[in-house]
Amino acid sequence: MERHFERDLNELKERLLWMGSLAERAVHQGVHSVLDSDEQLAKRVLDEEDAINELQIEIDDRVVQLLALHQLMATDLRLVLAVSRINNDLERIGDQAVNIAQSAVRILRHPRVKPYVDLPRMSEVAEEMMRDSLNALVRRDVELAQKVLAMDDQVDHYRDQIFRELLTYMMGDSSVVFPAFELILVAKNLERIGDHATNIAEDVIYMVQGQDVRHPTVDRR
Amino acid sequence: MERHFERDLNELKERLLWMGSLAERAVHQGVHSVLDSDEQLAKRVLDEEDAINELQIEIDDRVVQLLALHQLMATDLRLVLAVSRINNDLERIGDQAVNIAQSAVRILRHPRVKPYVDLPRMSEVAEEMMRDSLNALVRRDVELAQKVLAMDDQVDHYRDQIFRELLTYMMGDSSVVFPAFELILVAKNLERIGDHATNIAEDVIYMVQGQDVRHPTVDRR
Repeated sequence: MERHFERDLNELKERLLWMGSLAERAVHQGVHSVLDSDEQLAKRVLDEEDAINELQIEIDDRVVQLLALHQLMATDLRLVLAVSRINNDLERIGDQAVNIAQSAVRILRHPRVKPYVDLPRMSEVAEEMMRDSLNALVRRDVELAQKVLAMDDQVDHYRDQIFRELLTYMMGDSSVVFPAFELILVAKNLERIGDHATNIAEDVIYMVQGQDVRHPTVDRR
Repeated sequence: MERHFERDLNELKERLLWMGSLAERAVHQGVHSVLDSDEQLAKRVLDEEDAINELQIEIDDRVVQLLALHQLMATDLRLVLAVSRINNDLERIGDQAVNIAQSAVRILRHPRVKPYVDLPRMSEVAEEMMRDSLNALVRRDVELAQKVLAMDDQVDHYRDQIFRELLTYMMGDSSVVFPAFELILVAKNLERIGDHATNIAEDVIYMVQGQDVRHPTVDRR
């Protein structure tokens, strides 16, 4: 029984990491479809969405099966519940990548707006947050997870900067309002990707330190 | 043991519904702080955020306790996992209400922008989606949950309409760019509230029909 459980749990973690790598690639390709005005790349992101959605369902099923077959200790339960939530966050990161790719396609219909301000840097930070949050998960590394939480401020800072620059730009030239607004939507999507990476990092901390920070009590019920 | 489990599960559901009512109230107050330029109401939303966050942690703890104490059948497991995910969605709806209240405070610093276009109607639909998704949960009502999914198109339609109107408005008068942009952010927040209600409705359908629509298989592992 013990071995069986370890095997199921390892398979579950492997599938989640595979999900993470699909979501990472979708974000990377989505962002580059905007930055490089690459419509083919945008379409690839849209084509690959189904694989992420199917994997989400598979992982949810594995979680149910695992909990149905084994009676887990609180530590393992927290791990499995964290996997279930992270699975959700990864699927929604995939959705954001799709939104970015759709923006890329719409942006291509307009003349190119001036340099993309801080968007490349903002996307680098968001992608790094994703990568680090998944690495923190693999290594159960609370310190790295905390670094991810700290990086979210950088993402929000870039978002504010990008908003300000693009709005000022829109005020000066009303013909760029629509394409500049698409870039604002892309910045919003990157902000959400940062939020999801933050959720993943929080789940890692909860998973590792659960009892310490949350004080579950029996007498509460 | 059986009774004990029923009691724990009922308590869990009650707490989740209480969480739902707090989130609903936060959204309602947040939206009205914008529509009625009511700074006091906005501050109330900000003050009440902590209660929602604490309740989220309490519910997560209850989920862990319940799974640690009882070996559940797949049907009950799906219910408990759905509760865990819905708990997350409700907390994030609370975050969106806070964002809306913060926008309200910032909007008050500018002269009032022309009538708030379709924002009141968009917020009514988003609030109805929240209410219906929670009612669908209580009644295990798949039909009502499906109605929620259909309403998400309305929310997206209003969002597009509001974006178009406000962007056109910004093109005509550059002095309204900043306050009009705040209203765009509010519309984005309402869109996300609709998305979370959609997630809740999907969880209700998964919970009730799980096996039928998702085909969990043992031989997959």
